[in-house]
Amino acid sequence: MNFHERLGFSADRIEQHLDQRLADLPPSELAKAMRYAVTGGGKRLRGFLVLESAALHDIAAKDAIGAASAIEAIHAYSLVHDDMPCMDDDDLRRGKPTVHKVWDDAMAVLAGDALQSFAFDLIADGDLAADRKLALSLSLAHASGAAGMAYGQALDIAAETAGAPLSLEDITRLQSGKTGALIEWSAMAGPRMAGADAGPLERYAKALGLAFQIADDVLDVEGDEARTGKRLNKDAEAGKATFVSLLGLDGAKARARDLVAEAIDALSFYSAQADYLKDAARFVISRDT
Amino acid sequence: MNFHERLGFSADRIEQHLDQRLADLPPSELAKAMRYAVTGGGKRLRGFLVLESAALHDIAAKDAIGAASAIEAIHAYSLVHDDMPCMDDDDLRRGKPTVHKVWDDAMAVLAGDALQSFAFDLIADGDLAADRKLALSLSLAHASGAAGMAYGQALDIAAETAGAPLSLEDITRLQSGKTGALIEWSAMAGPRMAGADAGPLERYAKALGLAFQIADDVLDVEGDEARTGKRLNKDAEAGKATFVSLLGLDGAKARARDLVAEAIDALSFYSAQADYLKDAARFVISRDT
Repeated sequence: MNFHERLGFSADRIEQHLDQRLADLPPSELAKAMRYAVTGGGKRLRGFLVLESAALHDIAAKDAIGAASAIEAIHAYSLVHDDMPCMDDDDLRRGKPTVHKVWDDAMAVLAGDALQSFAFDLIADGDLAADRKLALSLSLAHASGAAGMAYGQALDIAAETAGAPLSLEDITRLQSGKTGALIEWSAMAGPRMAGADAGPLERYAKALGLAFQIADDVLDVEGDEARTGKRLNKDAEAGKATFVSLLGLDGAKARARDLVAEAIDALSFYSAQADYLKDAARFVISRDT
Repeated sequence: MNFHERLGFSADRIEQHLDQRLADLPPSELAKAMRYAVTGGGKRLRGFLVLESAALHDIAAKDAIGAASAIEAIHAYSLVHDDMPCMDDDDLRRGKPTVHKVWDDAMAVLAGDALQSFAFDLIADGDLAADRKLALSLSLAHASGAAGMAYGQALDIAAETAGAPLSLEDITRLQSGKTGALIEWSAMAGPRMAGADAGPLERYAKALGLAFQIADDVLDVEGDEARTGKRLNKDAEAGKATFVSLLGLDGAKARARDLVAEAIDALSFYSAQADYLKDAARFVISRDT
């Protein structure tokens, strides 16, 4: 199986698990909005990292699928809230109208909230010892909250209203929370499930997360709206500092390539078993969506 | 110690724990907004139920304080989101301006989100076996999400836009999610920590939760805004069906008294150890805030 087949296979598996677990909720518009937001698309890169880092530690996919689905539920909740008019105000996501456009702002708040709760429910699916499941849950709470993703988002919003433009250091801290925290959690999920040393994957994930964000900034400038299914050129229009505005387009691409090399180097600890994770690192800077 | 001293003592203890744990977050406006929302007031009735049901099962307060703080963080997040203009649109909470008035809507979204993550972090504070902590966390995810609190809130919002008024059965289901789920979780936390039968406390909590909500509807009509620190008479103004509009003021009060008697009866399983929980049941229908 090549990388893209493997990525697609894992996305299907996650989609199926989410689909089954959503079916257990009491039928309601809320459950419909959650399903709309969390199923039906996306590369499921975070879930893929969970499944691959689990496989690297001999954890079966059936025991890692809960964590892979949980991180996708957290990611989906953050997008639903981030797209709201009071946040980034986006009408399109993965080529579909956003939740607050299909329903309304109140439903977007509630669907995001309930997807976060859902993640902390999904996290325990599968056969792992209780202390390992608890470690996954606590680390997910850290990665999502006021020292992780929400922290990065709050810095992002503060930057929009602040007078002074952000420095490279500021942006790196902001993005390390906003997108880095969930990517790091995903790549480190496998060793957490196995009670193994997460050091090499932490180094991999830090480089990968930053490369991912730089690639996003490059896509925002060079990407195609029809392919990405979301509005582009937002940062330049908003006058926001990005890796591209600070490093230049070529400089940003070069930095992303260096980070991918660093991520791949961190995996030398695992030899050939980690080839799919190496491919994932190359993929994040070559993707066009 | 009488009931009110005990309630105050437990509120102080929870406040102190929240205060310490908030201090560990990276300093930010987000952390300030979270602190503003979750500290500095409230009866902490849910946290009190956690500590009392824990004491009833010989779980020390130091080992139950995490769960007591977690439920207060969930409650606070739900209030921050519920007060937003796209939801209930309230400017006052416990006599203070609401989070979106002090900051803005974006901060209200993020502070609520981060308080939910924070709850799933707090839940593991204290010395309990990992499987007990995990059971607390999973049941909290259920109680908060699309089969619990968020479900009740979505039904509430749908009722505002629907043409037909709600029946007694509709309102009971709505409230059993919106306020009942967290109250039940709180009262059942003790047996969950001890791996004991939660049956008697479940019966207690179901009756208590419903009595609490009926008392809230009565307060909405008869209460004093200066004492409650929030806007009253909202339901009548919005033309919403409530327990009072469906049962009449006297009928609603009589129903609440019957439920309190039922809650107290459910505690006969525990003899005198459960006196504070009996007092709590009497308290929910006699409070004026």
